[in-house]
Amino acid sequence: MNAFTPKVANFEERVRASFDRQPFMQTIGASLARVAPGEAEIVMAVTPRLGQQHGFVHAGVVSALADTACGYAACSLMPASAGVLTTEFKVNLLAPAAGERLVAVGRVVKPGRTLTVTQGEVFAETGSERRLVALLTATLMAVEGREDVRD
Amino acid sequence: MNAFTPKVANFEERVRASFDRQPFMQTIGASLARVAPGEAEIVMAVTPRLGQQHGFVHAGVVSALADTACGYAACSLMPASAGVLTTEFKVNLLAPAAGERLVAVGRVVKPGRTLTVTQGEVFAETGSERRLVALLTATLMAVEGREDVRD
Amino acid sequence: MNAFTPKVANFEERVRASFDRQPFMQTIGASLARVAPGEAEIVMAVTPRLGQQHGFVHAGVVSALADTACGYAACSLMPASAGVLTTEFKVNLLAPAAGERLVAVGRVVKPGRTLTVTQGEVFAETGSERRLVALLTATLMAVEGREDVRD
Amino acid sequence: MNAFTPKVANFEERVRASFDRQPFMQTIGASLARVAPGEAEIVMAVTPRLGQQHGFVHAGVVSALADTACGYAACSLMPASAGVLTTEFKVNLLAPAAGERLVAVGRVVKPGRTLTVTQGEVFAETGSERRLVALLTATLMAVEGREDVRD
Repeated sequence: MNAFTPKVANFEERVRASFDRQPFMQTIGASLARVAPGEAEIVMAVTPRLGQQHGFVHAGVVSALADTACGYAACSLMPASAGVLTTEFKVNLLAPAAGERLVAVGRVVKPGRTLTVTQGEVFAETGSERRLVALLTATLMAVEGREDVRD
Repeated sequence: MNAFTPKVANFEERVRASFDRQPFMQTIGASLARVAPGEAEIVMAVTPRLGQQHGFVHAGVVSALADTACGYAACSLMPASAGVLTTEFKVNLLAPAAGERLVAVGRVVKPGRTLTVTQGEVFAETGSERRLVALLTATLMAVEGREDVRD
Repeated sequence: MNAFTPKVANFEERVRASFDRQPFMQTIGASLARVAPGEAEIVMAVTPRLGQQHGFVHAGVVSALADTACGYAACSLMPASAGVLTTEFKVNLLAPAAGERLVAVGRVVKPGRTLTVTQGEVFAETGSERRLVALLTATLMAVEGREDVRD
Repeated sequence: MNAFTPKVANFEERVRASFDRQPFMQTIGASLARVAPGEAEIVMAVTPRLGQQHGFVHAGVVSALADTACGYAACSLMPASAGVLTTEFKVNLLAPAAGERLVAVGRVVKPGRTLTVTQGEVFAETGSERRLVALLTATLMAVEGREDVRD
């Protein structure tokens, strides 16, 4: 594992404030469980209204959790002046997303001035059982000087 | 463009019935605008509760629309006995998803007995203006003989 | 289809000069068939020494052709001062790459100051028959001010 | 880390025999350094004829190494009757591939009867220094009953 040094001292506060400004995270009932330098974890209770046609959590929700965890993992290492945008991600859906909770963990693989590459895992948990259901890789871009893109 | 021949006569009815069983599509206010052999189109009004921290539609919602359009594009060509599951997708986010409506168009690139490869485009529309905001490629798997995966 | 305007008048000459500096393109016997604003086409004769274990052209070679075609499609629209680097690509392998020739066509989907998103198709040709064998999406980065990255 | 149990006792012999039938691996001077259940490692000396226009190893070669390592990681867990084909991969290029050697490590993330998902890392080594230059995820398909696809 890499050890990363954040560029801003209050990286956790900053990430939490930005997460709280995401209406969609509230819409799906997701909360930010943990932030560390280059890492973020998001937890969501599974509910029927987030399901696809077979009753599993929709791949778009699974991806939203992993993409957001990756975005904040990247954001935790960015300078105060930068906003963060996802430029691309790819997700492999390994097993149906069914269970009581989904937990998404995002980690920085390679930080960069412009682009940061991250990896995300989504686990489905039932009781004390945990199963990997999705693996995601994402590229995040640090955006400077845009009033509408701040984190 | 390819011309595809569906394996079931009532492919549109089947796709519409499956779409209607997706709670998450209702949660985000998406509707199935059009189904053709190897093609599907989904429309969604943009609302604040689907936004990320800068006010654009969350990448997970954008992906959910494109992935679902691709899934039903694939499903329209599958035998009656098969259910369809996404195994992977990759999305390039080309521009912030802002506007009045998002329109996702999914098309089959290569149908197959087990795997079908598709491509999806998401457009943001404001009035009569239309802008491409995301490009997605997805692999869908035809699943046979599983009671919990039917379409 | 989009119509793109190149930033440099001699975009074709520039792309051809850069292509000729790629030893690996010579190693696999590939040549640059065509360059247009936002588009490039590469052709390669299939030979046994490029095969994988079943005799098809190796996925790495198929990807190299598509990635290079996409890179020069992007390069054709870049300012004279920029070098181009691939930051990521994803390829779906649709059919075994077997035939007499492979033809890779790269096209710009969305040009940008920093990042350009492209799409590539690889066709296998035998006589007058042509078959799509791979679909690729790639992100290219314009790199400024680095002596070791010039195109 | 997962511990996987191979379905055939001579999995290493089988993987090595298949690798030796790959002309392209010989063309680029790659050799199979290590095979374990669900894991494979490939090593290649860097030479100018594998370069792109800036002198770095071509992304297609980097991808070929990672894809092949992933393919054999998957193959090591497959039944004797199956052949293995890559259906898709995505690669993030993290740093220019420059150095004395490239080392690609492929690992199974999720084995399956039909599809196996893997992850590959490529490192550039110079002396005792090692740097991660690429991260890849790949889906491999087990193909049964095809005379032309055996491993």
